[in-house]
Amino acid sequence: MATRKEDFSKWYIQTIQQADLMDYSPVRGCMIFKPNGYEIWEHIQTEFNRRFKEEGIRNAYFPMLIPESFFNKEKDHIEGFSPELPWVTEAAGEPLEERLALRPTSETMIGDAYSKWIQSYRDLPMEINQWANVFRWEKRTLPFLRTSEFLWQEGHTAHATAEEANTRTMRMLQVYKEVVEDLLAMPVFSGEKTPSERFAGAERTYSIESMMQDGKAVQSGTSHYMGTKFAEAFDITYLNKENKHVHAFTTSWGVSTRLIGAMIMTHGDDSGLVLPPKVAPQQVVIIPVGPKKKLDVVMEKVDELYAELKAAGIRTVVDDSDNSPGYKFNEWELRGVPVRIEVGPRDIENNQVVLKARDADEKQFVSLADTPLVDTVQAELTAMQTRLFNSAVDMNASHIYTNINTLDELSAHIEAQREAGEVPGWVLAGWDGTEESEAKIKEATGFTTRNIPFAGQYEEKTTCIVTGAPAKHTVWLARAY
Amino acid sequence: MATRKEDFSKWYIQTIQQADLMDYSPVRGCMIFKPNGYEIWEHIQTEFNRRFKEEGIRNAYFPMLIPESFFNKEKDHIEGFSPELPWVTEAAGEPLEERLALRPTSETMIGDAYSKWIQSYRDLPMEINQWANVFRWEKRTLPFLRTSEFLWQEGHTAHATAEEANTRTMRMLQVYKEVVEDLLAMPVFSGEKTPSERFAGAERTYSIESMMQDGKAVQSGTSHYMGTKFAEAFDITYLNKENKHVHAFTTSWGVSTRLIGAMIMTHGDDSGLVLPPKVAPQQVVIIPVGPKKKLDVVMEKVDELYAELKAAGIRTVVDDSDNSPGYKFNEWELRGVPVRIEVGPRDIENNQVVLKARDADEKQFVSLADTPLVDTVQAELTAMQTRLFNSAVDMNASHIYTNINTLDELSAHIEAQREAGEVPGWVLAGWDGTEESEAKIKEATGFTTRNIPFAGQYEEKTTCIVTGAPAKHTVWLARAY
Repeated sequence: MATRKEDFSKWYIQTIQQADLMDYSPVRGCMIFKPNGYEIWEHIQTEFNRRFKEEGIRNAYFPMLIPESFFNKEKDHIEGFSPELPWVTEAAGEPLEERLALRPTSETMIGDAYSKWIQSYRDLPMEINQWANVFRWEKRTLPFLRTSEFLWQEGHTAHATAEEANTRTMRMLQVYKEVVEDLLAMPVFSGEKTPSERFAGAERTYSIESMMQDGKAVQSGTSHYMGTKFAEAFDITYLNKENKHVHAFTTSWGVSTRLIGAMIMTHGDDSGLVLPPKVAPQQVVIIPVGPKKKLDVVMEKVDELYAELKAAGIRTVVDDSDNSPGYKFNEWELRGVPVRIEVGPRDIENNQVVLKARDADEKQFVSLADTPLVDTVQAELTAMQTRLFNSAVDMNASHIYTNINTLDELSAHIEAQREAGEVPGWVLAGWDGTEESEAKIKEATGFTTRNIPFAGQYEEKTTCIVTGAPAKHTVWLARAY
Repeated sequence: MATRKEDFSKWYIQTIQQADLMDYSPVRGCMIFKPNGYEIWEHIQTEFNRRFKEEGIRNAYFPMLIPESFFNKEKDHIEGFSPELPWVTEAAGEPLEERLALRPTSETMIGDAYSKWIQSYRDLPMEINQWANVFRWEKRTLPFLRTSEFLWQEGHTAHATAEEANTRTMRMLQVYKEVVEDLLAMPVFSGEKTPSERFAGAERTYSIESMMQDGKAVQSGTSHYMGTKFAEAFDITYLNKENKHVHAFTTSWGVSTRLIGAMIMTHGDDSGLVLPPKVAPQQVVIIPVGPKKKLDVVMEKVDELYAELKAAGIRTVVDDSDNSPGYKFNEWELRGVPVRIEVGPRDIENNQVVLKARDADEKQFVSLADTPLVDTVQAELTAMQTRLFNSAVDMNASHIYTNINTLDELSAHIEAQREAGEVPGWVLAGWDGTEESEAKIKEATGFTTRNIPFAGQYEEKTTCIVTGAPAKHTVWLARAY
């Protein structure tokens, strides 16, 4: 195995393969989500569905194929997405009259539907989510993080007022932050994207961004305020209380299977995957140890403990294969299983088990005398979830730089970090608000603007890192996946 | 509204639209699953996921796009599916070197993966399910029942022996029967499909078939035993305990969103949709009635009852819109909500509510004095689920004909039913086992073989309905969706 420091990209690919999360497919850029990878997504879905329901948002399903004419209705949208679209041009042995795109996102299809479904203010707000596969034919792909086909949820809402639409936009950003931090133990940085990084067709785009262990950023979720742009393009109007036909205000917001990739790059270590307990397909593995002739009595205890943990809803597996304990320990570490329980003849004599948390250095001897194993394990899973979050917070904090004020200083910083074998991290910088300055930063350093943190979180920078002119915004700069 | 008897097709389309389950889309044959329609699917998914997990089957996700060369590996498979495939021929502005089909089913993609994943007998059985969208470019489409894009689950398993593969094939057919009968209250007829109706590439196909109120059949789920046909085409071999490379035996099985259409055609009545309580998005609607000046006191009671039902996990809505009670009653009947509760000032005085089950003719006055409303409602939901199943069983029984022995008798039966304004139903017939006889039945009557019931359920027919030769099988004949 490559270590993270030696070659982070190589480490990542090895980690996801050894953990049996995915496989490549014969179609360029399309990956297979194997059961261990897909189940992480199922846990993410379950939690988001719970939160969406609390928000009064319902699920639906819209067709995947989108007529070319729909894209042409919103100029920015087609410009943004057309370079990445795959097209169906024939079906059932005949050429189609109009090309059909595999959806890259569904604003156009849903906009068309909303224009029919929304007639009166009584129909508003209309708030629908969809879980779906989407397609963006990317030049360079990376499993989970950038694939030609991926899975996501996309919420689409329409409102009577700009204020309500804005509230929904900001609320969903907050829901994303809460779920990602709570479930994936992954701290995120919320803020507004710069105009050049906006969703194609949005008036404003907000994002949650996460820092990986190599100091690069992953955009982990976005929430878009469309104003009336899509409503105008798709004729989403309603009769208001004053009996006038007016345009609705719309939003959309999404998270995708790239969350899985970001989570892996946040928590993994040089022994492989490290899974936050809340999303781990297997939370506990029980491994019998000791001489073969005592296996019967050991397995009796193992089965008993397995039944207890399972009954308590803890996702547990027993590894009673013929492999050696050392082989098994390594294998389940590679798979990131949060808690390993070892049971041997000596443990049974002492009414104890050995417990090893995936992120801990040491094993613990855990007595079964006073506390049921279920309680001990549940406490350990909860504690590990918190530890992972906290150590990611620490990792982030130690890779944030707020005292870099010129492009030369930024270049020098990156070079110095490189020479020291350290990652360049994220830089909080002043920006004059121009696309020219953004382009210069990227050209000189490879860093791009991630987002503009909401006011009050960090000291505002006063001068632009590129031009030295007064800063219009303070922005996060980083390399990004 | 058209009645079922006047025009069943028209009744069906009106019912699904008035119940707000779906909408048409601008893409031919692709429908929109609106929240009320999609949530039925979510309840179906939840139950199947629970059952699959009990069977040790895990979910995964495979790419949607399938290279043309994959289809060509299994001759029967490509012959069966190629007339219906849509093709991606361009992506990101360039023509593709090889056309990619939108999956109609995933035997080929998963077969290719299994050929890599399965190396040794230790890797078997391999049992994976996928929830996905699939495409079959149909000439004539009907919402839920036959659409160009639909949603389904497809399970794919590989086994060391023919016996194990056969056991899995039959077990999943049984799981389908149990879930469809229990959850959708829809009785099914299990059996084996005739060779001409087999899945393209299967050695044997089994189905569950359901009878609609117009006497037509819907194939509601299928389970296929592939033998080693796909294993040979995709080189799925493993090293057995004798250290020999041998082919695995595979199965696949699926149910789709057409279950929703079948359920609607089974239970709906001339007032619209009738939903089995277990899958109803809203199980109870509470409607305040009475004069406006007493609305405050009524709403207080309504809110209290709503909170009680909701806390008990009963999916409940309150309709406090400005519409008249009569309008509301009609609207919620159209939507098929199982239980309606009316609360008015007089009810509050008498410590009662009015309860109307969707499938009952009469309202009941329900006292709140002795039994909490939650208990009454839960009992009513359970009773209604059973009633719907039983009345579908009765409906089926009254449309089954077992004494028709020649093609002339069958034609005469169909004609007589038509003249009497009755549906032709299903006919249990002897069949000599030849494709010629099947073709003749279809040509003369429009009836097709549905499946061959398992032995012992019905009296075996001794002569073929077409040729009068000794019958090889006893088969169900019916018109089918």
